[in-house]
Amino acid sequence: MAVDGLSINLATVREQYNMQQAVEACLKHDIVAIAPWRDQIHAIGLSEAARIVADNKLQVTGLCRGGMFPAADPAARAAAIDDNKKAIDEAAALNADCLVLVVGGLPAGSRDIRHAREMVADGIAAILPHARAAGIPLAIEPLHPMYAADRACVNTLEQALDVCDLLGVGVGVAIDVYHVWWDPKLEQQIARAGASNRVLAHHICDWLVPTTDLLLDRGMMGDGVIDLKRIRRSIETAGYHGPQEVEIFSAGNWWKRPGETVLSTCVDRFRSVC
Amino acid sequence: MAVDGLSINLATVREQYNMQQAVEACLKHDIVAIAPWRDQIHAIGLSEAARIVADNKLQVTGLCRGGMFPAADPAARAAAIDDNKKAIDEAAALNADCLVLVVGGLPAGSRDIRHAREMVADGIAAILPHARAAGIPLAIEPLHPMYAADRACVNTLEQALDVCDLLGVGVGVAIDVYHVWWDPKLEQQIARAGASNRVLAHHICDWLVPTTDLLLDRGMMGDGVIDLKRIRRSIETAGYHGPQEVEIFSAGNWWKRPGETVLSTCVDRFRSVC
Repeated sequence: MAVDGLSINLATVREQYNMQQAVEACLKHDIVAIAPWRDQIHAIGLSEAARIVADNKLQVTGLCRGGMFPAADPAARAAAIDDNKKAIDEAAALNADCLVLVVGGLPAGSRDIRHAREMVADGIAAILPHARAAGIPLAIEPLHPMYAADRACVNTLEQALDVCDLLGVGVGVAIDVYHVWWDPKLEQQIARAGASNRVLAHHICDWLVPTTDLLLDRGMMGDGVIDLKRIRRSIETAGYHGPQEVEIFSAGNWWKRPGETVLSTCVDRFRSVC
Repeated sequence: MAVDGLSINLATVREQYNMQQAVEACLKHDIVAIAPWRDQIHAIGLSEAARIVADNKLQVTGLCRGGMFPAADPAARAAAIDDNKKAIDEAAALNADCLVLVVGGLPAGSRDIRHAREMVADGIAAILPHARAAGIPLAIEPLHPMYAADRACVNTLEQALDVCDLLGVGVGVAIDVYHVWWDPKLEQQIARAGASNRVLAHHICDWLVPTTDLLLDRGMMGDGVIDLKRIRRSIETAGYHGPQEVEIFSAGNWWKRPGETVLSTCVDRFRSVC
């Protein structure tokens, strides 16, 4: 019997499994929703990845990831747009619920975050017609402010929704608790996202105290300080009832454990603390 | 001739100097504004610290720090309030421009950040009469969201100003570029702070890419990605013309260099990039 409402972002077991192996392991745990990364798809080929998804009737809660729009060089910006269009096509081939956008940070040598943010809005606008034609919603993922310089200069849900409002239909948000749990306006902005049907994904993990690495020290649900049930209630109240997608980057802990252990822990914690 | 507009937060040279030594080194560089920490004052005694300040006609741009209000145990909350009142008295003895408040994070075992925030507002309200009577403005320092769990659950300027509006006269904000540079609403909220005369301090350093430690890897001005001149213009436009206070926690770099080198670099960078 499927574990309803649980999706595994395959980054969570990227050190243990390729996509084929990850899907087999998920199915053993009755997990029938996944979110793969593009490198994992490229490693086995898009058609094989699509076959695995279709044959196993998997829900793909998102493809990770498009984005990375800002660049000092116009040719590099154009290349990013082309690559994002390819990502949209891949998301369509996988019948994914959305393409997750990690929008990119400051170009090398730049201190102009306002300009970077303009390049993000321009980049999304440039790929949006392609996304609409393919039927793939674009999910802007606001990233924690500690990533503003090097990964994503969209850093709050409010800011992401402002971009959505600017761009219109076909754009929404991926709400990852790790990035937004601290935000004093979180509930308000989740409600705003719900009112315009912009919630496209709900990612979970936990914030550890202490956190020893800015990128690769995310915690398993229940091991940190995020009130996961409260945020889930807000998101459900806002009208989103899709799966919660576990995305854990954990170089020192979960990436070192057997994949079976990671997945069984995800199921246990999903049932007890999410 | 004094380096007008530059203050040194003595944490910047805490591994090299005690307060007396730090002041002597600052004066050699014609720096006549400082911001000491309470442990530095306690190490030499409050009356000696006050004598050093008075004899050298130093401007004390802030005393670090009060705050740390949330606690699960009511007795611990009461102890924090008592300690904050002592900090106010110390700030008054030093004729400090303000007492900087690092408000505190989640109590151990708690996931309820809203409750922590209520305890912060209650704590500041409890010490405010004492601060007003002593003539010491309380400067709420919004800390970067990566410190929300363990150091400060006030994480944006907007949120800090909402607390100020709630509490009235005698409370303002310390704007540290390290904590707020990423904020898409930064200019808007600096202007708001200026309109109500709430800017009490302006701290500077830089955000390094990559940042290798959440707490102790702050950069020297010019070595990172913060547009210091732009933020300074916003703060001056908002009506604040006090010194910029250099506060650098740098276990791997600046804390290991000779204090002379650190201070001369601060002066050089202050003149060139701030």
